[in-house]
Amino acid sequence: METLSSNACFGGTQHVIKHSSDACACDMTFALFLPAEAQDGPVPVLWFLSGLTCTHENAMVKAGAQAWAAEQGIALVFPDTSPRGEGVANDEAYDLGQGAGFYVNATQDPWKPHFQMWSYIADELPALLAENFPLDMERQSITGHSMGGHGALTLAMSLPGRFRSVSAFAPIAHPTASDWGRKQLTAYLGADQASWSAHDAALLMQDKGFDGPVLIDQGTEDQFLDLLMPEALSGAMAKRRQNGTFRMQPGYDHSYFFIATFMEDHVTFHADALWSA
Amino acid sequence: METLSSNACFGGTQHVIKHSSDACACDMTFALFLPAEAQDGPVPVLWFLSGLTCTHENAMVKAGAQAWAAEQGIALVFPDTSPRGEGVANDEAYDLGQGAGFYVNATQDPWKPHFQMWSYIADELPALLAENFPLDMERQSITGHSMGGHGALTLAMSLPGRFRSVSAFAPIAHPTASDWGRKQLTAYLGADQASWSAHDAALLMQDKGFDGPVLIDQGTEDQFLDLLMPEALSGAMAKRRQNGTFRMQPGYDHSYFFIATFMEDHVTFHADALWSA
Repeated sequence: METLSSNACFGGTQHVIKHSSDACACDMTFALFLPAEAQDGPVPVLWFLSGLTCTHENAMVKAGAQAWAAEQGIALVFPDTSPRGEGVANDEAYDLGQGAGFYVNATQDPWKPHFQMWSYIADELPALLAENFPLDMERQSITGHSMGGHGALTLAMSLPGRFRSVSAFAPIAHPTASDWGRKQLTAYLGADQASWSAHDAALLMQDKGFDGPVLIDQGTEDQFLDLLMPEALSGAMAKRRQNGTFRMQPGYDHSYFFIATFMEDHVTFHADALWSA
Repeated sequence: METLSSNACFGGTQHVIKHSSDACACDMTFALFLPAEAQDGPVPVLWFLSGLTCTHENAMVKAGAQAWAAEQGIALVFPDTSPRGEGVANDEAYDLGQGAGFYVNATQDPWKPHFQMWSYIADELPALLAENFPLDMERQSITGHSMGGHGALTLAMSLPGRFRSVSAFAPIAHPTASDWGRKQLTAYLGADQASWSAHDAALLMQDKGFDGPVLIDQGTEDQFLDLLMPEALSGAMAKRRQNGTFRMQPGYDHSYFFIATFMEDHVTFHADALWSA
């Protein structure tokens, strides 16, 4: 494990850390914000999973999350969105390969050797964090943007008891029925669609839901609405009587300006769950 | 004038605008955040001048200023830091030429034809803003980072009555005595040092001060302390009995994490001045 940078930030510290990943069989980089309270003992953790083309860096510098996490005394983890490096398979398209891991474990070549993002986020990175940093792993919540919203929702519903709350900004809500999904699930998981449904937030919401509160924000002027398919998720939430809030935000698009605008609401939402007894 | 992008942001709108500049004899790009209140009438204006290597974009996406400006109902202007383009002189060094205008009017070749950043920020851009946007130009304040802190302080002290308050994050405080200054002032203004003192915040503070409140934040772990020379400015402020606050912030460096951390304080500081009768 190598610390690439540490910057004082809102009374705490923003770290960027590189480590050798077994799951992805390459070096992986993540960002970790520790609030001042981490000097005195373990603090709760909020995961932020990023979208297509992003690294650990985008949300770390553009989402404004540290201000609110510092106020609430919780840590932030910003993982990368895929394995990377010279020996790692890639594709010319922005939405497949490096920067587009889709938070699944690939079973198909050429992706299988490195693209094990589900295991990385669900198992390897939490274990590394628990061992090395003052984090209370009994108090975890998760959020994300776009492809990362998809990741946050599918992880939260598939790992009952792991996360106390889940939220998403403009998530890819129904990838088995969208061009943001079918292409990638075919590439990573193969043409047999039976394996896809475990990675579709709307289907998971239909089938099992989430044992805790859910918050979704979606801009009405999002340029990718047809690909995100928010109606599939909002419909499933209502049908299941899921404890949760789905907000259509008038005028907002898919950008980090949208994320930053509602970040305080999301961090506060998670803090309420993280700090409850 | 061409609007390159407009994004909903904290209830207002973040614009990026390109226009043909007479002062710099090239196209210039700036960012303008208008809070929701601008729909109902003119709002006060806070200028943010950026540092070496930056464009209009860095502070717009990394400083987190819109959250607080929206709360206070004030607009934000993020100008570029130099003229740019193929016909514009440049230098291989990061601290001279494009991205390093130093907020002066160059009198020396090859810089003279385009590097007229003082006139651009003091005259041309304010006139363009006043004509085209709902801004109350009787209520302006200014801040900046590093080279932009230098620009904010020198403009504020040299244009009495223009700005109600001035602040800076880690400003280049005494460029006539620093390698961040002597090199650039020689290149842009010539070897005759008589012309330099009008562009040195510490000297201006000694000679005239500012007719309003001043706020300076400087990190104690800033990697550029030797070049910034904060002691020259803090000493001059104390000697003049300048209405103002100079804060050494323990542990903070020169990064945008430092700026974001104290942005709320700066916007609140300016809002107090901007909204006073």
